[in-house]
Amino acid sequence: MMTKSDVTTMIRAAKREKGIGWAAIAEEVGLSEVFVTSACLGMNSLLPDAAGKLVDFLGLPAEAAVVLSEYPTKTFAQTVPTDPCIYRWYEITGVFGEAFKELVQEKFGDGIMSAIDFDMQINRVAHEKGDRVEVVMSGKFLPYKSW
Amino acid sequence: MMTKSDVTTMIRAAKREKGIGWAAIAEEVGLSEVFVTSACLGMNSLLPDAAGKLVDFLGLPAEAAVVLSEYPTKTFAQTVPTDPCIYRWYEITGVFGEAFKELVQEKFGDGIMSAIDFDMQINRVAHEKGDRVEVVMSGKFLPYKSW
Amino acid sequence: MMTKSDVTTMIRAAKREKGIGWAAIAEEVGLSEVFVTSACLGMNSLLPDAAGKLVDFLGLPAEAAVVLSEYPTKTFAQTVPTDPCIYRWYEITGVFGEAFKELVQEKFGDGIMSAIDFDMQINRVAHEKGDRVEVVMSGKFLPYKSW
Amino acid sequence: MMTKSDVTTMIRAAKREKGIGWAAIAEEVGLSEVFVTSACLGMNSLLPDAAGKLVDFLGLPAEAAVVLSEYPTKTFAQTVPTDPCIYRWYEITGVFGEAFKELVQEKFGDGIMSAIDFDMQINRVAHEKGDRVEVVMSGKFLPYKSW
Amino acid sequence: MMTKSDVTTMIRAAKREKGIGWAAIAEEVGLSEVFVTSACLGMNSLLPDAAGKLVDFLGLPAEAAVVLSEYPTKTFAQTVPTDPCIYRWYEITGVFGEAFKELVQEKFGDGIMSAIDFDMQINRVAHEKGDRVEVVMSGKFLPYKSW
Amino acid sequence: MMTKSDVTTMIRAAKREKGIGWAAIAEEVGLSEVFVTSACLGMNSLLPDAAGKLVDFLGLPAEAAVVLSEYPTKTFAQTVPTDPCIYRWYEITGVFGEAFKELVQEKFGDGIMSAIDFDMQINRVAHEKGDRVEVVMSGKFLPYKSW
Amino acid sequence: MMTKSDVTTMIRAAKREKGIGWAAIAEEVGLSEVFVTSACLGMNSLLPDAAGKLVDFLGLPAEAAVVLSEYPTKTFAQTVPTDPCIYRWYEITGVFGEAFKELVQEKFGDGIMSAIDFDMQINRVAHEKGDRVEVVMSGKFLPYKSW
Amino acid sequence: MMTKSDVTTMIRAAKREKGIGWAAIAEEVGLSEVFVTSACLGMNSLLPDAAGKLVDFLGLPAEAAVVLSEYPTKTFAQTVPTDPCIYRWYEITGVFGEAFKELVQEKFGDGIMSAIDFDMQINRVAHEKGDRVEVVMSGKFLPYKSW
Amino acid sequence: MMTKSDVTTMIRAAKREKGIGWAAIAEEVGLSEVFVTSACLGMNSLLPDAAGKLVDFLGLPAEAAVVLSEYPTKTFAQTVPTDPCIYRWYEITGVFGEAFKELVQEKFGDGIMSAIDFDMQINRVAHEKGDRVEVVMSGKFLPYKSW
Amino acid sequence: MMTKSDVTTMIRAAKREKGIGWAAIAEEVGLSEVFVTSACLGMNSLLPDAAGKLVDFLGLPAEAAVVLSEYPTKTFAQTVPTDPCIYRWYEITGVFGEAFKELVQEKFGDGIMSAIDFDMQINRVAHEKGDRVEVVMSGKFLPYKSW
Repeated sequence: MMTKSDVTTMIRAAKREKGIGWAAIAEEVGLSEVFVTSACLGMNSLLPDAAGKLVDFLGLPAEAAVVLSEYPTKTFAQTVPTDPCIYRWYEITGVFGEAFKELVQEKFGDGIMSAIDFDMQINRVAHEKGDRVEVVMSGKFLPYKSW
Repeated sequence: MMTKSDVTTMIRAAKREKGIGWAAIAEEVGLSEVFVTSACLGMNSLLPDAAGKLVDFLGLPAEAAVVLSEYPTKTFAQTVPTDPCIYRWYEITGVFGEAFKELVQEKFGDGIMSAIDFDMQINRVAHEKGDRVEVVMSGKFLPYKSW
Repeated sequence: MMTKSDVTTMIRAAKREKGIGWAAIAEEVGLSEVFVTSACLGMNSLLPDAAGKLVDFLGLPAEAAVVLSEYPTKTFAQTVPTDPCIYRWYEITGVFGEAFKELVQEKFGDGIMSAIDFDMQINRVAHEKGDRVEVVMSGKFLPYKSW
Repeated sequence: MMTKSDVTTMIRAAKREKGIGWAAIAEEVGLSEVFVTSACLGMNSLLPDAAGKLVDFLGLPAEAAVVLSEYPTKTFAQTVPTDPCIYRWYEITGVFGEAFKELVQEKFGDGIMSAIDFDMQINRVAHEKGDRVEVVMSGKFLPYKSW
Repeated sequence: MMTKSDVTTMIRAAKREKGIGWAAIAEEVGLSEVFVTSACLGMNSLLPDAAGKLVDFLGLPAEAAVVLSEYPTKTFAQTVPTDPCIYRWYEITGVFGEAFKELVQEKFGDGIMSAIDFDMQINRVAHEKGDRVEVVMSGKFLPYKSW
Repeated sequence: MMTKSDVTTMIRAAKREKGIGWAAIAEEVGLSEVFVTSACLGMNSLLPDAAGKLVDFLGLPAEAAVVLSEYPTKTFAQTVPTDPCIYRWYEITGVFGEAFKELVQEKFGDGIMSAIDFDMQINRVAHEKGDRVEVVMSGKFLPYKSW
Repeated sequence: MMTKSDVTTMIRAAKREKGIGWAAIAEEVGLSEVFVTSACLGMNSLLPDAAGKLVDFLGLPAEAAVVLSEYPTKTFAQTVPTDPCIYRWYEITGVFGEAFKELVQEKFGDGIMSAIDFDMQINRVAHEKGDRVEVVMSGKFLPYKSW
Repeated sequence: MMTKSDVTTMIRAAKREKGIGWAAIAEEVGLSEVFVTSACLGMNSLLPDAAGKLVDFLGLPAEAAVVLSEYPTKTFAQTVPTDPCIYRWYEITGVFGEAFKELVQEKFGDGIMSAIDFDMQINRVAHEKGDRVEVVMSGKFLPYKSW
Repeated sequence: MMTKSDVTTMIRAAKREKGIGWAAIAEEVGLSEVFVTSACLGMNSLLPDAAGKLVDFLGLPAEAAVVLSEYPTKTFAQTVPTDPCIYRWYEITGVFGEAFKELVQEKFGDGIMSAIDFDMQINRVAHEKGDRVEVVMSGKFLPYKSW
Repeated sequence: MMTKSDVTTMIRAAKREKGIGWAAIAEEVGLSEVFVTSACLGMNSLLPDAAGKLVDFLGLPAEAAVVLSEYPTKTFAQTVPTDPCIYRWYEITGVFGEAFKELVQEKFGDGIMSAIDFDMQINRVAHEKGDRVEVVMSGKFLPYKSW
């Protein structure tokens, strides 16, 4: 039975062989880079139509589209991520998490930023002292309420 | 000996008593909300001039300004944060961390987004289906290189 | 500076001294038992009006009402809870968590039950073979979507 | 030797191929959705008769019915679950666990809600601001006693 | 506000001063040694009458009886206990836990031994090669059932 | 090279096929149920004669008897066991461990109950309110001494 | 109520003030250095007579002797010790633990070296390339047996 | 590519088949039992000459000698070892580690016992109350110094 | 699909077969020993040209060069490394980490030493009392700044 | 009884008050910056003469010199350090640890770099693209040997 992990391997193999980047895949599928990449890595699902486009574009078997459209179980094996690129984000959570909470509360009242009704863009911003990674996240504010 | 934790408590007490928000403090100090809040929570340091303004504004003892300008040891006690507002960010790190890494590599080559040469804004964005928390992070891209 | 933990101790002391139960407090405050109890334990906040009623009812100092209405940081110190009454719920999460996920997905599509837009009741249900604890939880369904 | 994990894979494959949902399987077997789903995921066992019906309905080999009726070892590998749909329940345990304990004690005396003499329903409840997931759990109260 | 931990310290101090053993306390209270000892250590509660006898016997303040009869939160701070006397029991759980499960299932069907409807005795049994510790535990069998 | 884990699988397969219980195996081998079951699960070793009887009874290859008589490495992978039947024992260790230690010390002096010079029986005891699992453990008292 | 930790602090203070070493204390008490040191650190207990000698020698209050003769709870807070002097022993356990087990089994049959019926000496051995720490441990062999 | 783990399995298989003990292997190789056993378990390396003798004696392929002489990565997977024979040593580290440190410091000054310039013997010592396991460890003292 | 782990195994096999050291490989590739070794172990990537030289030198398939030039995910599985050679570095981090931080701050102001814009040499330095391992690390100082 | 932690606080207070840096303290004491700083933070001990100079220079009580010269217990509370300045070193250990081991083995044979017979310098090196932190560590090579 083909798994999401199998499909991720197929996509990586097709990328290596064809020299295709995530941007091209996202454009073909018609969705944002972040979302399509995360779906290809097994952390989100694609609607059947989008999954079909992706599978056609990369020349994968039809069952791969079924697998890509199944709802994933989001599993992250490392409690503290070790890859430096990902760890830095964990570090930002630790260093700025309480300040983030303080400001969300001040601006919105008690509640949280949703991680479900959520989107994210990653941009390259030119800068004279070295280009910068810009991340823009947007999540719906969900207020606590009493009952 | 007055510690950063003591000063955080003094600031919270002054905020409760005077009914002052973080935005007002940040405006007085002349820096962004996120940075000032994180410095008040002991996760960053203020330059002496900024620390002096803050202490004057809130009516804290002069030693508090010295403490605010000392370099902090950034300690986050919970490996997995439990407060929902902060946990959601940890979850985003887990769910989108690998996609983030893939896209940074595709857009910049191998390397990371710095968490030191870094800034962040938190905005309230009006939306008809419920206002949204917008987070904009910007960090310098640091490339790996061989030697 | 009075903390939420201080107020919880005051409430417990008043309960012990006056022999008042959570139900009576909740009725006085005009909210549900679960919510009021969790606010008294420092895991939720009360609106100022409700906090005032509580403080008056139990004869606590006025500052306690301010503290009860401040936004809490939800901290649970034990990764795996040890008290049997709470552990059983952790066990249910482990044993039925995947089945819960399967059925939410089947009934709603991919997404989650919100723990923020959420309420809960705890009832005693008489039963001939021994009374039963009934827990009714209701959380808004939050769908994942692509972008 | 066929394992429960093998049977779960067979059931998932049959579901994918035939397009059958958990509700249809539960109806065929004559038990509730939650229980049947958890048994198919290897966290509970079916009586031989029910197991036989399930195996017939999905066209699995006869040994699968034997395996489904064997007593499972309930193993949950993640101390803190990472999938958001399951994590939210862990969060509810942390945020409301002590309030739950307080109210069970007040309503019943010292003791716990059984996680063994236990059942659960998951319902979709229509709501104008967005449908809600309703979970109803019922467990026998087990009192502590002295000896 | 007097806590269970305070009362445990008082009881230990009274034991040290008066040279009284747990057996004498248990006899005075009219309950078993294991139960009374565990209540004095804050892991179980005594009915008010029993708590009163204990407090009178050891000459503790009256509030101690109220505290002893309050429902405890059972907290064990060490995931793996380090004291050898307690670790050995943890080791027995690890070494014989699966065998225990197999035999409970064979003798009773699927289910567990309750740790709530439960009692335990600890006896000294004379033996020519060295006396033995005998532990007799009895817990109600709780069957799993389908629904 | 045949391992203890291989032999455990063979024994489970033979049990499933022949419908034999642990009691019958133990009787054939001439040892107690608990010990034989734990040896079959790889947590203890059988003397060659006993291993031979077991292998003959279940129709396993001769090498299985060699493996059953080799000294095992006792490995328990879960620090906190998750199966409810085994967890309850872990809970008993946590809730009653300190009381156990107090009473062993009072009855014997400072020391421990051995987990090596140790035996255990598991019995079904009929009871009008529901049958009970009785566990009788006996371990040699090992005194600490000075040197 | 004086605790073992209090007494350890008193002993350290007396040692610092009087310039007395562990060897002198052990000689006065009439027991080995290792045992007396471990008792002073709260990990073992002294018989009342030995405790009295120690308390007299260091000029501590009489209650300290009572505390030294009470049975300790052996608690080691660090799962992996960080002090290099102690870590090296942890490392030896990891590197040579399996070899130790193999050789104990070969020389004695299945069983363990007791850590209770146990003694240890630590010696300085002169060596031309640098003196060596010699540790001699002796523990009773405890055989596993079937029942 | 043949690994150290493969060679350990070959050695265990040869031992089982030929009925050879570690003592005989060590004698053939001309080194101590502890060292040879640990090398066979992959925790140390043999010089090529010694590795050759071992491989000849047990009839293993020539590549096994190359593997035995390669430098190992010492990996111990369990932070707290669970096998009782090895755990007892972990327990000794916890119970006597601080006393060991105190005495090394008193006898040698500040520093540690090396775990690298290190050797160990394991002996069976006859004793009327039961034979004893004697462990003799010797490690070079390494002093801390200032710079 | 060939992975970095596959390539590491190929390189180790080639090294074993040909008797080539890391120094020779590094010289051939034209980069430092530390960097090339870490790339071969999958922790860094080589530019295509360097990867090609390495693959030619060791006689590996062409796909290996593609794999060596792909960006790695840096995963270290052991939170606390167990191999003594690597653990010592972890120990140095623990023992001298705070002193390092103090001195970096004093010499540079608040900030960190980059682990990305970073290089390292490992040298053998002859010394009459025993040769020494010299490690020279150089990382760009990254200052914190306010915004 | 004055502890090392007390003395560290005294030193930090004196530094804050007098505006003295670590370099000045080290120069006064006549030892390197790294060593003196680590001793002031409680991770190493000073010889009495050096401790006396330090205490005189900062105007601390005489007992502080005694405490500074006592042998420390090196305790690092965070398994994974969270302060970014220290974490980067942990990251270097993870990313380059295996390469370090490979090269030490190639250059010296099997063995380790001592963390005891060890010294370290931290230098500021000017660089046109931003100054660099240079760390030079030197530790005696300790070879494994057979016995």
